[in-house]
Amino acid sequence: MSVFSKLNHIFHPESVAIVGASEEVGSMGAMFLKPFLTQGFKGSVYLVHRNKTEVMGMKCYPSLRDIPGEIDYVIIAISASNTPELMKECVEKKVKVCTFFTAGFSESGTEEGIALENEILEIACANGVRIVGPNSMGIYSPATGLYLSSGLSSRSGSLGIICQSGGNAIYLSRVSEMRGAAVSKAVSYGNACDISESDLLEYFAEDAETKVIIAYIEGVKDGKRFYSALKKAAGVKPVIILKGGKTEIGAKTAASHTGALSGSANAWTAMIRQAGAIQADTLDELIDMAVAFTHIPPLRQRRVSIMGVGGGVSVLAADSLLNANLLLPPLPDEVKEKLQQKINNPGYIYTNPIDTLDLFKGMDEVRNTVEALSEWDEIDILIPHMAYDIMGIDPEIWIDSGLTKSIVNVLVDCIKKTDKPMAIVLHYVALAKTYQAFSEELRICCEAGIAVFLSMDAAGKALDKFIEYYENIG
Amino acid sequence: MSVFSKLNHIFHPESVAIVGASEEVGSMGAMFLKPFLTQGFKGSVYLVHRNKTEVMGMKCYPSLRDIPGEIDYVIIAISASNTPELMKECVEKKVKVCTFFTAGFSESGTEEGIALENEILEIACANGVRIVGPNSMGIYSPATGLYLSSGLSSRSGSLGIICQSGGNAIYLSRVSEMRGAAVSKAVSYGNACDISESDLLEYFAEDAETKVIIAYIEGVKDGKRFYSALKKAAGVKPVIILKGGKTEIGAKTAASHTGALSGSANAWTAMIRQAGAIQADTLDELIDMAVAFTHIPPLRQRRVSIMGVGGGVSVLAADSLLNANLLLPPLPDEVKEKLQQKINNPGYIYTNPIDTLDLFKGMDEVRNTVEALSEWDEIDILIPHMAYDIMGIDPEIWIDSGLTKSIVNVLVDCIKKTDKPMAIVLHYVALAKTYQAFSEELRICCEAGIAVFLSMDAAGKALDKFIEYYENIG
Repeated sequence: MSVFSKLNHIFHPESVAIVGASEEVGSMGAMFLKPFLTQGFKGSVYLVHRNKTEVMGMKCYPSLRDIPGEIDYVIIAISASNTPELMKECVEKKVKVCTFFTAGFSESGTEEGIALENEILEIACANGVRIVGPNSMGIYSPATGLYLSSGLSSRSGSLGIICQSGGNAIYLSRVSEMRGAAVSKAVSYGNACDISESDLLEYFAEDAETKVIIAYIEGVKDGKRFYSALKKAAGVKPVIILKGGKTEIGAKTAASHTGALSGSANAWTAMIRQAGAIQADTLDELIDMAVAFTHIPPLRQRRVSIMGVGGGVSVLAADSLLNANLLLPPLPDEVKEKLQQKINNPGYIYTNPIDTLDLFKGMDEVRNTVEALSEWDEIDILIPHMAYDIMGIDPEIWIDSGLTKSIVNVLVDCIKKTDKPMAIVLHYVALAKTYQAFSEELRICCEAGIAVFLSMDAAGKALDKFIEYYENIG
Repeated sequence: MSVFSKLNHIFHPESVAIVGASEEVGSMGAMFLKPFLTQGFKGSVYLVHRNKTEVMGMKCYPSLRDIPGEIDYVIIAISASNTPELMKECVEKKVKVCTFFTAGFSESGTEEGIALENEILEIACANGVRIVGPNSMGIYSPATGLYLSSGLSSRSGSLGIICQSGGNAIYLSRVSEMRGAAVSKAVSYGNACDISESDLLEYFAEDAETKVIIAYIEGVKDGKRFYSALKKAAGVKPVIILKGGKTEIGAKTAASHTGALSGSANAWTAMIRQAGAIQADTLDELIDMAVAFTHIPPLRQRRVSIMGVGGGVSVLAADSLLNANLLLPPLPDEVKEKLQQKINNPGYIYTNPIDTLDLFKGMDEVRNTVEALSEWDEIDILIPHMAYDIMGIDPEIWIDSGLTKSIVNVLVDCIKKTDKPMAIVLHYVALAKTYQAFSEELRICCEAGIAVFLSMDAAGKALDKFIEYYENIG
């Protein structure tokens, strides 16, 4: 039986029990129970609590044994010392998979914790129960209605997330969805006592719903198997890896977080490259890569054209892309002439980057520029950009007038009408006034299936690695 | 006469004329006139327009000559070809300084543009009128009530901004103020035909209102004078420089933006270092450095303690700071014991970084942790961090419950009560729901005079250069 068929059923339970549920703010009730009740899980949901009879208006059973129906999936949030007893109940109820939010196992470094982890693993293995964790947030599978936490989207996409850390899994899931790269399945796998990063790589490699895989990994127990799983997965779809604990103290922190043995940073870099996977340096770079691979067609050359408002912004945009090994070919005479015929704006600068000076001159200017650049054959990708906070007028004026929104709508319309690959940079800003416009316009772009990056630096880094991937696979 | 006394009066005009004002969205009227009318300029404001009699309810004079009173400062936004005639009017009216928003001079690369720039400069120089620009946004001096554009704060601070690009000047001014490093004076100096980056460095070096200088420079005309001005300024206060146009295409773009000759990137790096100034790589790093120098006392050692929620976040935080050459000493037994006595939270991890697991356990835990770490002598700076989007519970729940706001209020209170240097990292997020909390809590910290960084990477990079500065000056 392939890993895929061994694991696939755990993503499709028909009934769920939450053990240790409560309803305080920040509690399991709010975190795990709420999405089951509100976000469309089609099966049965049961609560188990030794001392409670009701949580959030739902009946609580004193033990799994007392639940009348079958239980496929159990989320466990009781103290570690009580988990061996619970595992026996899981075996009795023929549970398919348990996810352990509970910590206090091998990552604690104590003999007791290590022994407990071995004990639950032994019971599970001997009886066909699979474990995610312990010390994990579990499984997010929006199509099924499984959630790592509340506040996650119920929209299903094609991004597979393998994440040793629960918090980072939530961050990656939330932010990638917001950036238009919705999740197929995400797994926060914690201490990896049973289901490991290698199992998950093999699973996601075969999972037809998953087109792109991103992973945050602190350490692996079986390096040889991991390399083989990574190579196999990277052979069929893009896999991007962020290694946590690359420094000495980071590694020590990882050990106390998930009990992971980190390995040397250089060895990881070499292994990832050799396996045909891609290395990311930050969580946000993982998301940038997910966005690139979700929305941009394969590129094998590095020629970029930039258009936007602002001289200084254009200078820095050019620096960012060139530093990222991209090319900015000079604007050919025929494109320049085409633009000059259509655009009468004394500040417009006919170079690459094009500085349109001010887009306030009208939407025709935006459309004419994009159309002319779309027909420029020697360019592989066009990047229009919008730098909200360099504009001289008060943000309130352009938010109220809908100016930047009109520009973004024209860009989206143009992108839909052309075959030229495009990405948009919406320079991310921190001001409350401009955030409002940024956020709304990001949503418009993402809903149209356009790759958006939040700075030219981020776009450059992502495109460099994105194109390198296609250069390597030829 | 020192450069300071030569230039100081241009920041303190008693009367302003705006030439070429109009009232369309994105126009000069909205951009330059509005702040004069609404944000507290105490002197007289006059409008000049050849064909209009009124803009935004204000009388328009057909020429400067027709204005009854004196004019100290003129903002020019008419087409380049009309500026020599206007300069003659400025001479007649004994104007002290003109800022030229108008472009189409030497940066155009045309003979006509170069000749025009020489012509206006000649008229100005011969008659004691100073020019900022052309092709610039001019002067921002909130204490006087001068603005580069509308939408800028009227709060005055101690950050001097020297910026060749108008858009970048606006960005730096807006965002640094929002980050708690308000501006003393900012100058967008464009083509630098008269007042140059070197003049401004010499001015800001002597300006008592200015404690920290940041600069965005595309190129300098007199390298020797610049080096001398930079060295002099860096000898008396921190100066941080971002060089735009470091790459070949970036330099070409700079040439068409402000006519600047960029020079080699390596030469710039060497010169900045040798002058005792600091090099930044991005606009946001300029702002991070401004924040560090505005709020953190001098540090000469690199020992940091981190506290916050989240295992994966802690691992990456350690990696970020170690990659930035900072040190994370292990938690000494006496601090660990002190914490263990006070804190009973099974997930709390007593290492450095401290993972408080969940701060939902209560505000006493936050206070106890900060207090114990403040007394740890071998640490030079403490960095509490808040990662909004790793939290398992729905952002709406903790926003409504005011949870993170309570935490930030406790942190701010603790910071006020201790001598231990601190900075806070509010991990910046893009989700609309969490942005609301982030933005409000950033404001609380900034109003309390606390350095806030938006990621641990950004904090690490800024602190590395910040401490290096104090290591070098001994």
